[in-house]
This record gives sequence, structure tokens and C-alpha cells, in this order.
Amino acid sequence: MLYIVGIGPGSKDFLTPIAEEIANTVDILVGSKRALDLFPQATRKIVLNAKNMNKMLEYSVKLARNNDVCILSTGDPGFSGVLKPVKKLLSKYKNVELEVIPGISSIQLCAAKLKMPWDNVNLLTLHGRKDYKKLLKFLNDDKPIMVLPSKDVNDLAKFLLNNGISGDKEIIICERLSYPDEKITKISLKEAAERKFSYMCVVVINYSE
Amino acid sequence: MLYIVGIGPGSKDFLTPIAEEIANTVDILVGSKRALDLFPQATRKIVLNAKNMNKMLEYSVKLARNNDVCILSTGDPGFSGVLKPVKKLLSKYKNVELEVIPGISSIQLCAAKLKMPWDNVNLLTLHGRKDYKKLLKFLNDDKPIMVLPSKDVNDLAKFLLNNGISGDKEIIICERLSYPDEKITKISLKEAAERKFSYMCVVVINYSE
Repeated sequence: MLYIVGIGPGSKDFLTPIAEEIANTVDILVGSKRALDLFPQATRKIVLNAKNMNKMLEYSVKLARNNDVCILSTGDPGFSGVLKPVKKLLSKYKNVELEVIPGISSIQLCAAKLKMPWDNVNLLTLHGRKDYKKLLKFLNDDKPIMVLPSKDVNDLAKFLLNNGISGDKEIIICERLSYPDEKITKISLKEAAERKFSYMCVVVINYSE
Repeated sequence: MLYIVGIGPGSKDFLTPIAEEIANTVDILVGSKRALDLFPQATRKIVLNAKNMNKMLEYSVKLARNNDVCILSTGDPGFSGVLKPVKKLLSKYKNVELEVIPGISSIQLCAAKLKMPWDNVNLLTLHGRKDYKKLLKFLNDDKPIMVLPSKDVNDLAKFLLNNGISGDKEIIICERLSYPDEKITKISLKEAAERKFSYMCVVVINYSE
């Protein structure tokens, strides 16, 4: 049996009882270092990182043929999480049963921190790719945009500057949400293009409280 | 102090530790009967229902000037939740401080149950209104659509039939998610227009596993 379990933005505060229960009872726990850090008592673990991701995901799916395996997904597995790549693998390993448990996405925590309803915003994930076309489309809209940027916020800021958005435009950058050092910064595009930010970010465009 | 706290789809399985902690420590707990049922030990409660909603929300905001008040929001407060109406009230009661805690939306649990990534779907909430214009716009798209319908799923099905969608088209109706009697039904539009469903539903259009 294979479980894909959303653990939320990172802090235990947002870990649901059902996620905790599954993670604590499976045979093998799979996840990034920061996801596995929530379960120090686990004995059989597979650590995912950017380099081994594809290989280790496939290895985990293979193990799930004869073991209960839980892949931890930061945020929600269905929103820019591991659900998509695992579903692809399951077309190859058809006899593996899958159960998915949702988690709080950093998008939701960002919206909560900014006291911002998000049922009428444009959501965009650029994790793992720099597909900016949609972002340009969304900029023609007047709705707020919430972006999970690709690794580099600077790159996103530069892209906006190069596409005619004013350097004085303010955006909001939410870093390391739910962690003790979380940080919310209102900043002009011009400044954002020159500063370094955490790789764990949500960027909000076209929103004022 | 006023807290708006997302409690998730309904079952305790999805109640985060931070939501539980806040609900258990405030002076007054406010919410629908099914939200308050999660906290039987609470002593000072205000029960919200469709009829008293506006009046009791304003009363709760007033109380929050001198008390710690927690308004429980099923699902996520920022997605078709109480955040919007409370923000309006806060423009009148400016000295009340607000903190918002996200929760798992039924949209997310629906996506998880269907093993469906939701970072490239059209999300639509019709709660409290029958604004079908957007739905028509979304139908011209080929992305899956996830809808929180207004009270009546039949009404939604009839609207689609009356707007040229084939009666044979299959939709998915997820009722009472996270409760012991949760039910997921694949059904033709024609049949959906004739059946009764729970008021707690997520409807999925244009998705096949």
C-alpha cells in the first residue's frame, strides 16, 4: 500500500492527526529532510532530494508492492506536490494501491497570514519549471496572483521587470512560513530583483490589504 | 482578540493542532453546530446558522473587543469561508485584532479522494449565491472544474443541461467528505438533475481518472 500524505507548510502545528497516524504506522517513510524531521522516531526512512528524486520515488513505489510506504509531501500533495510524478509511476506499477491525504498548502498559510480570501485569486505554481507564460496572462487580470516561484524569486522579479511591469510595483514575499524564522516582506520589484530570498517562498502580486 | 480558525472538512482527523489549541483556550467559541460538535467541552458557545449568521458574526466581533473569541470556519476560512464577511465587519470595529488559521478545504479532500492534482483546475464557489456566469466561462476551458455548489446540486445540474451540456455527460459528486457516511458518486447530468444530494458537496466536472 502506498500513501501520499500532505504534512502542511512545515511546522507540526499544521500536521493533521490522520497524517501523523499514517506516518507513524507505515513500514517505510519517504520524504525530504525537512519533512522527515517531523518524525524523528521513524526507523526505515528514504531521504528525497532534488538529485535523487525520480530514482527514489520509483524505488518507493516498488517497495509499496510489498510494504506500507508513506511518501510525505510538504504542503498539499495535489498542489505542486508529489502526486503528479507518483501517478505517472503508477501507470507502470499498476498493482500498487494508493491513498492520498491532503495537507495545508503554503498558499493557504500565506493567504491566512495576509488575511486574504483566496477563492477568487489566480494560483500559479512554477516549482521545478520557469513557465512564465501563464503569469503574463494573469497579469492582464485584476485579481491577486499567488505564485509558488521556481527556485529563484529574483528571477521572477527580473522577468516581471523585463515584461514592462514597473520597478516601483510592490509585491509581497512570504518566506519560510510556519517556521520560527518566517518572514513577510513588502518590497518593490526593483528591490526584489536584487535581494536573496529563501527557496521556500510564496509571492503575492496585485494584492493590498 | 479575534481568531478565525479553519477546522477542515469536518472530521477530527483533519483538525490541526494549532486550530485545536486556539479553540480550547479562547473565552468564546463561535461556529455552526457541526463545527462546535468538535469541541464538546467548550462552555461559552455561539451557534451560527443560516438565519442568524450576519447578526451573530457582528455580535462575535463586538465581543472580541474585550474577549478572546474564536470563529470556527469549516474548510478553509479564506476559501468560501467566513473571512470575507468578518473582514467587512472589521472595517467598522477597527480596534479588533485578527488572526487567521488555515484549514483543509473540502476541495482538497475531494481532490485527494479522486487522486487528482488541483494546481491546474478551475475552482469555483457558489456558496450562498447562484453566480453561474463563471461556470459557463470555465466550461469553455478543457481544465477540470471543482465546484462548491450553492445549496442545491440539482439546480447546478439543471443549469448545465439548460446551457447545452449533454445529459449523458458524467460528473462526480462528493458528499459529506470526511464523515463516516461520505459518498462519491459518478453520475450523468440527467440523473443528477433528478436526485437529492447532501448540502455538503463538491462537484467535479471535466475530470476522468
